[in-house]
Amino acid sequence: MFDLSSYVQQQAVLVNAALEHILPSPEQQPAKLHTAMRYSLLAGGKRLRPILALAAAQAVSDCDSESKKVLPAACALECIHAYSLIHDDLPAMDDDDWRRGIATNHKVFGEGMAILAGDALLTYCFEILTQQLAGYPPELVLQVIAEVARAAGSQGMVGGQAADILWEKNQERGGNPVEVLDYIHTHKTGALIIASVRTGAILAEADPEQLTALTAYAKCLGLAFQITDDLLDIFGDETKLGKKVGQDAALGKLTYPAVYGVAESKHQVKRLLSSATQHLRCFGAGADPLRALAGYLAEREY
Amino acid sequence: MFDLSSYVQQQAVLVNAALEHILPSPEQQPAKLHTAMRYSLLAGGKRLRPILALAAAQAVSDCDSESKKVLPAACALECIHAYSLIHDDLPAMDDDDWRRGIATNHKVFGEGMAILAGDALLTYCFEILTQQLAGYPPELVLQVIAEVARAAGSQGMVGGQAADILWEKNQERGGNPVEVLDYIHTHKTGALIIASVRTGAILAEADPEQLTALTAYAKCLGLAFQITDDLLDIFGDETKLGKKVGQDAALGKLTYPAVYGVAESKHQVKRLLSSATQHLRCFGAGADPLRALAGYLAEREY
Repeated sequence: MFDLSSYVQQQAVLVNAALEHILPSPEQQPAKLHTAMRYSLLAGGKRLRPILALAAAQAVSDCDSESKKVLPAACALECIHAYSLIHDDLPAMDDDDWRRGIATNHKVFGEGMAILAGDALLTYCFEILTQQLAGYPPELVLQVIAEVARAAGSQGMVGGQAADILWEKNQERGGNPVEVLDYIHTHKTGALIIASVRTGAILAEADPEQLTALTAYAKCLGLAFQITDDLLDIFGDETKLGKKVGQDAALGKLTYPAVYGVAESKHQVKRLLSSATQHLRCFGAGADPLRALAGYLAEREY
Repeated sequence: MFDLSSYVQQQAVLVNAALEHILPSPEQQPAKLHTAMRYSLLAGGKRLRPILALAAAQAVSDCDSESKKVLPAACALECIHAYSLIHDDLPAMDDDDWRRGIATNHKVFGEGMAILAGDALLTYCFEILTQQLAGYPPELVLQVIAEVARAAGSQGMVGGQAADILWEKNQERGGNPVEVLDYIHTHKTGALIIASVRTGAILAEADPEQLTALTAYAKCLGLAFQITDDLLDIFGDETKLGKKVGQDAALGKLTYPAVYGVAESKHQVKRLLSSATQHLRCFGAGADPLRALAGYLAEREY
């Protein structure tokens, strides 16, 4: 029986150590900027995206040590995630004061520095990808950079965030809520989760069939993860989550429970995770971490 | 005699057409985000960075049509520049209402959308570099991405902007003004100008000696350009500049005229541009655009 809990813990330790090492030190100029970048990036979190990249590489290579070679790319993905949280939390966006149990970046460093820390983390992702993957063929590295840039950009994550705040600020209530919700969820969180899985798979030299299967897995997992997040904002425990709950409803955000109801949302999570697991049929024991991650989300209680 | 004025005009037409074509259309979802990105990127401007990339490629290849192949990379550099202006103009930074004769991005689209438009333009730079340079060897493209990411990041442009606002907000007045000024200028504008020249040179397969010479040229030109910009903020014509003058002094910014005085600043510009031209000694007529650009800045009246 695969022990997900210790797997996730071990991988997170690995990722945290690599992040600590890979980021510019707070002694380097400008010290305040680097301190602000490190503050948010090293503040903990599930490290879901890096873990997915590592787990996807393991599914393809069926080899733990081989999969660890993708660690710098996994860190680059976490830089993108951290930047997106810093910018999402700004007063002009979701205006959040707390994240992962600590004050948000702009509450500590000021809005200007928080914007710049986000900009720098986004840029640093590409610096890592070009400089820390020297062992891989350049064409594979370029393919990964293309994946990540597309997933993070105006037709990926940033596009989802734009649609989210436009809806919330009541500026684009013309659309069909079901379609807008689908757009927001597949773009705002889905795109980077898919890119994380694909990054691990591409670097592990997945064949086209494996890449298609892992992409399908990631699509299901990403959406299930976002619906779970919506549910946690209603039923979650503030202390465990490290942030205020009930924010989605307060901001009038478009969420799965708001559009489909709680029961149907929970049902969808189970359906999606069952599909996710099915897409892993063609893989052996190397895909056990990916299977266990889907299983864990499916069993989660609210 | 090289006709700089028509050269610059022709290259700007080329760059503008390429930018228009390369950006996601405003019809693509989310329409408002793409409209905001296009608003700032297509609002005009000198297109100095793309023109430098094209001119550097021409210096190396000595061939106009060969140099035009770097156009997508030139556009990517302008995306970075446009994003940096959008974020710099935000209320939490320089709080500017006007830029290039039109309202700044956040005045038209709101702060949240302006932050996202900047994020998306930064990300799009890397999408362009990975997808529009298919004719080049992957290792050269990777080298360019590394250059651009380093120049734009926390130890390049964003670092310079952070040092700038920290000084301005009086938080770090401990440093030596001459050293802080040097840091701000070489990082905030210098790094991306050097990266622009190097991008053109690398893609044109410059040899190490050529790359060193062009880098030295770009260092001198970039600093001269920034000092000129400082002087224009004192002596420039608001109508021609399309933005308010006197802003640097009003914000208490560290500038060359403030630290060295006007006469010495003008003198420095001339010295730097004379060095810039000398670094081009090893090039033939292909480097005439680069020579003429330095000559133009040296002759500029305030």
